[in-house]
Formats: sequence, structure tokens, C-alpha cells
Amino acid sequence: MPVSPITLFFDFSSPYSYLASTQIEALAARHDRGIEWVPVLLGPVFAATGSRPLTQQPLKAEYSLLDLARTARFLGVPYRHPQPFPVATQQAARVTIALQQARSPLAVDWIHRVFEAYFVHGHDISAMPALHAVGAGLHLPPAQIDAWCADAQVKDRLRANVERALHAGMCGAPFFVVDDEPFWGVDRLPQLERWLQARF
Amino acid sequence: MPVSPITLFFDFSSPYSYLASTQIEALAARHDRGIEWVPVLLGPVFAATGSRPLTQQPLKAEYSLLDLARTARFLGVPYRHPQPFPVATQQAARVTIALQQARSPLAVDWIHRVFEAYFVHGHDISAMPALHAVGAGLHLPPAQIDAWCADAQVKDRLRANVERALHAGMCGAPFFVVDDEPFWGVDRLPQLERWLQARF
Repeated sequence: MPVSPITLFFDFSSPYSYLASTQIEALAARHDRGIEWVPVLLGPVFAATGSRPLTQQPLKAEYSLLDLARTARFLGVPYRHPQPFPVATQQAARVTIALQQARSPLAVDWIHRVFEAYFVHGHDISAMPALHAVGAGLHLPPAQIDAWCADAQVKDRLRANVERALHAGMCGAPFFVVDDEPFWGVDRLPQLERWLQARF
Repeated sequence: MPVSPITLFFDFSSPYSYLASTQIEALAARHDRGIEWVPVLLGPVFAATGSRPLTQQPLKAEYSLLDLARTARFLGVPYRHPQPFPVATQQAARVTIALQQARSPLAVDWIHRVFEAYFVHGHDISAMPALHAVGAGLHLPPAQIDAWCADAQVKDRLRANVERALHAGMCGAPFFVVDDEPFWGVDRLPQLERWLQARF
């Protein structure tokens, strides 16, 4: 019986999603699972939960900056909190979707490189020049990237991703679903791994 | 040079505080640290952060109930989500403070037993009969418990605890401070332990 992949709902502007993106592949490989990467937009999730970015909440703002830097050190990955933050990510998400629909092997590379452009190098990934630069590293022409961002069918798919995420109960990012079991947050990866091991 | 204790700010109605209370003593002992237990009220913290209990937020409500049960299994401790939830905890906090001020060795027992009364046995710890029952197990007369709950100086100290917690940056419960480094959440105990080991 084929096993289902780990589904990962994420927003490119979510720091904890970036951190999770650096960990999930090794975890999935340890358990012979694939990963379904599902780009979404956190705005509708915040609207549904009545929440907003941690960095815009009193007390949690200061703590979250400390926690992000420390969690990155804990995981052993680079992190530099970007400015501006957060940024619009629908264009980066649309390119991801277009690559996925084309079954391009570059889709996962694109995801990692966009996250790194923002959370390691501080490039404003809401702006097309930053996305063109990421694309250049993958030999994707700027005109192709622009065309994908304007594609109505791709836009529809992004909206469908958001609907699917909310239907799955997404209340924050990153949000994982494994065999119908939901996990919210990079800090739940140890529980996700226990789930894969033992269905505890 | 004497080492400072791990300070733990908690509310008796916080499920994640209960879960943390089952873990922190073994962790502290591994690193020759004491624990300073500081009962507070989450209401003023929610007011300061503009938040409210997870169980009252759309999407997060359903997820949090699943997460609590799973986190308890992950940690290997009993948990049964109580009703009513949340409840007022100032009386339980005041008894804690009175025992601490009397330097009673029962203070920590009281904390564990109140948490268990609520999160394992489902007793409504906002009601005096439930607190009297906990007290009976420690040979504390009901009249003594009532007197502590009515003590103006004890009430003042609880208010001071809340002020101290907010000043320390408490943005949720449990909230730990170790050598001026803050940690929010039972899920940050691995990072807290790494901090004690390596000041990473």
C-alpha cells in the first residue's frame, strides 16, 4: 500500500515555515515519506482565527524576535529577521504552483531559494526583481515568471490551496497533516516524528 | 557563585503550565538548579497581549484540544480536558503564595496537587470545596485556607506577581526566565535545557 506524503501548508512570509522547511525533508526521508508542499496565504488564516502576525502583538513581538533567532540556532540554520516584515507572498506562491503543475523538479528548489532570499539574505520577495533573481539561479526566464504570476488558472489554484488549508483546520504556519493528523508549528516536528514512528 | 533558580510564571488554569509542571523539576535537577514557582493570573496577560484562551479562538480551539491530549501522551503524563474551562484561579494562587511566604515545604506539593485536581481529576479548582479537598491531603485545615484567601497582604503579593510577570515580558503561560533569558511554552523546554547546558 503506498503511504501518503506529509502535507505542509506554508506561507513564504512565515519565519517558522522557513525553519520547518529546513528540517522536514530529512525527517520525511527517515520514514520513507514524501512531502506535498502547499503554498498558501496566511492573511485568510489570520482572518479566520482572529489573529495577526506575532510581531504585531504587544509583548509577543519582542519575544518572537528572540525566539526566532534562538530557534534557528537550536536547529543549526541561518536566520536574519528581514525588513520589511511581513510581505505579500502571492507571486512567490504562484510561481511555486506553476512549477508544481508542470511537474518541474525545480519546484522544491524554488521554495528553498525563496525562503533563503527572504530569511537569510533579506531580499524583499514581494518584489518581482527579487523573484527574478531567484529564478535566474534556476535558469527560469523573468518573462516566464511574470507569465505564471499573471496566469488565471494558477491564481485560482492558490485560492483553492487556501480553502483547502482552512478546511484542514490550518490555524497558523507551518501546518502539517500526516494521515489526517494535524500538527501546527516547527516545534511540533518531534511529535510529528513520533507519530510516524508509533502512531502514539 | 550561587546559581539563580529557574523562574516559572504559571496560571493554575493553563493546561500547558500543568504539562510544564510535570517536567521542570527533573530538568532543573539535571542542571543543579532550583525552581522559583510564581503563580500569576493569565487574565491581565491576555489583556496586555490582546489575546484570549486558545480554546476560545476559531480553528485554534479544536486544534488545541487535540494538541493538549497529544502533548500529554508525548510527555507521558495524564491529561483530561476539564469542564468548566478556564476557571478563576486567584484562590489557588493565594494559597500557594501564603505557603511560600511561610516557607512551607508543602508549597510545591500544593501546586502539583491543584494542577492534578483540575487537569487529571476534573475538579473545579475555582470553588473552595475543591481547594479544601486538596488541602485535606496536605493536612491543611479549611479555615486556614479560607484565611489565606482573604489575606490582604497575600492578595497584594498576587498582584505584584502579575506585575512582575508582565515586566519580565510574559506573553503566555507557562513562561520561564533563566538568567534573564525568557522561554514561553512547554515546547521550549528543550531549548531551555540547551541554554542551561551551553548558553547557546
